[in-house]
Amino acid sequence: MTPIEDLYAIVPAGGAGTRLWPMSRRSRPKFLLDLVGTGRTLLQGTIDRLLPLTGADRVVVVTGLDHLGAVAEQLPEVSAANLVAEPSPRDSMAAIGLAAAILQERHGSVLVASFAADHVVPDVEGFSAAVRHAAVAARAGYVTTIGITPTAPSTAFGYIRSGAPLEPAEGGPTARVVAEFVEKPDAETAAGYLAAGDVAWNAGMFVVRTDVLLGHLERLQPPLAAGLREIAAVWDTGDRGEVLARVWPTLTRIAIDHAIAEPVAATGGVAVVPGAFTWDDVGDWASLADLVPADAEGVRRIGADAGVVAVDSPGVFVSADRPVAVVGIPDAVVVLTDDALLVTTAAHAQRVKAAVDVLKERGRADLT
Amino acid sequence: MTPIEDLYAIVPAGGAGTRLWPMSRRSRPKFLLDLVGTGRTLLQGTIDRLLPLTGADRVVVVTGLDHLGAVAEQLPEVSAANLVAEPSPRDSMAAIGLAAAILQERHGSVLVASFAADHVVPDVEGFSAAVRHAAVAARAGYVTTIGITPTAPSTAFGYIRSGAPLEPAEGGPTARVVAEFVEKPDAETAAGYLAAGDVAWNAGMFVVRTDVLLGHLERLQPPLAAGLREIAAVWDTGDRGEVLARVWPTLTRIAIDHAIAEPVAATGGVAVVPGAFTWDDVGDWASLADLVPADAEGVRRIGADAGVVAVDSPGVFVSADRPVAVVGIPDAVVVLTDDALLVTTAAHAQRVKAAVDVLKERGRADLT
Repeated sequence: MTPIEDLYAIVPAGGAGTRLWPMSRRSRPKFLLDLVGTGRTLLQGTIDRLLPLTGADRVVVVTGLDHLGAVAEQLPEVSAANLVAEPSPRDSMAAIGLAAAILQERHGSVLVASFAADHVVPDVEGFSAAVRHAAVAARAGYVTTIGITPTAPSTAFGYIRSGAPLEPAEGGPTARVVAEFVEKPDAETAAGYLAAGDVAWNAGMFVVRTDVLLGHLERLQPPLAAGLREIAAVWDTGDRGEVLARVWPTLTRIAIDHAIAEPVAATGGVAVVPGAFTWDDVGDWASLADLVPADAEGVRRIGADAGVVAVDSPGVFVSADRPVAVVGIPDAVVVLTDDALLVTTAAHAQRVKAAVDVLKERGRADLT
Repeated sequence: MTPIEDLYAIVPAGGAGTRLWPMSRRSRPKFLLDLVGTGRTLLQGTIDRLLPLTGADRVVVVTGLDHLGAVAEQLPEVSAANLVAEPSPRDSMAAIGLAAAILQERHGSVLVASFAADHVVPDVEGFSAAVRHAAVAARAGYVTTIGITPTAPSTAFGYIRSGAPLEPAEGGPTARVVAEFVEKPDAETAAGYLAAGDVAWNAGMFVVRTDVLLGHLERLQPPLAAGLREIAAVWDTGDRGEVLARVWPTLTRIAIDHAIAEPVAATGGVAVVPGAFTWDDVGDWASLADLVPADAEGVRRIGADAGVVAVDSPGVFVSADRPVAVVGIPDAVVVLTDDALLVTTAAHAQRVKAAVDVLKERGRADLT
């Protein structure tokens, strides 16, 4: 597989993954964990998937200062110059925009592709093909997203509704203009989307030229664009610390979806290419359980196999360092760590956040 | 409270309590555990309840050789002569019959009262009153049982149906002849029993003269009676070991209910006195959970309070050494020990035995 010659990857590595408590914590966020049991963390898996498309010197990881050490340790192949540390979290537009601005400062306008550090994509070939396809539309000037072909009427993801096909030279006809981005739907709406057939899951994957991205940002979020430009200009100089300390805290907190994707889509500037590969954002334990194959007795498990007995409990998911018996709870989710235990079911996995909120209220910062 | 002068207590301490796995094990049976969190084990609680009725020198505990050391350690007030060790388990008739035969050998015919070592009776006064009442009927020659006044149509207990009242001199009229013992009913039958009002729960509590008990045994189980008589005759001599080794393995395995209570009831020889006190055989985790008061957040817990968060999970019961979050599982039962974890619900508590059976099949004797 040959790299895409003008492509840089940007990997924003942030977010705690609260719904994967007790395994993920603020101090031990989801992207630093080997949740699926592949032997590689989600961050490492993301980089493994990108390196064949870019080469090691064209991957930039943006993460919080708190996690810079762990990220550097997990990614020895990424040079220190390509690890961008944010002094504090200011949402995805600042993170991705800063990386794009630094790259444009260093190399002139280049193609960038942004992928979250904590998603799972087992089909590397399908993923690579979609990125190559997206690069064509991105070179033509579109903010280009990869829309995952839905396999179920999920209510856990946002959707992308596609419009007219692009020209063949721009990656059409399977690349299309994005008609609109829609929020996570209810079950009925999701079923309607799937039946209509013109929608894809929004996996937050963007491929775009830095001049296009930063141009939209100048127009739509001028103060944020100016701040990022000021920081990027001194990033590789001795003034970085001073400028970062002064400017970073002033940057607008906004997600790239709201800052760029939605408004640009409204004026026909966003394209979508189909991503017909398995993808998951591992948003909660139910989602993770779906990624883990069941053993001969129908038990799904990550971590060491200490023995699971499931009685009248089809579909259980367990992570524990000792034998676990689950009796009479179908789709039970049992996650034991050194300092906490979670017991829930796949259907309630989204509510784990509520339990973490209670721990926070009780002042148990050590556990959250 | 004055002791009942001619009464000896017999406490058969056997049974693993499989349904209370993973806390109870063959090596750590239920009666040796402080399951309710009172600071006393179930065995100690049983003896505490009996001592005021008998004094320390009139309590005999029958247990397996394997547990003799632990029993002696837990009961410093019971003399070694009153700890009867069975070489192997041969069911309740042999255990209780041996103790009765030894006592008759030592003291001539006496009144004995037999109570399992692993039940919970919080109301010591009510219990004592019932035993005193039962002693009257027992002295008159009845095998006398204490029938627990039902508080719900339980399907977990056997029932005692009462017949005609006894004479006042024999403890009547609230003491009655037992019409029949009935097995654990289904829910509908149990509801019918409760409506009819002439039934009580069979708690396996018997008060009887040793000459009456052993007389019934001679008639109904002659070989077993002969074996027990032979062992008892040499119990306090140097021949105990030899005779026990030779005779004990030949004894009929039968429960006292089948050997004595049911056939003697059929000919009008069993009486029942009402036991209007709270009683529980702590047969499973649901039963234990019912004995534990809920905290302000509706959580029931035994052991250290490491913090329980219950989200959409009313009625949870937890025993764990670390914080536990239960999300979306009403009446969840979560029991974490050093080497195992059980997750079930109150409604499935009886099925825990099935999980233990699977562990046995897998050769995990260390866990069962």
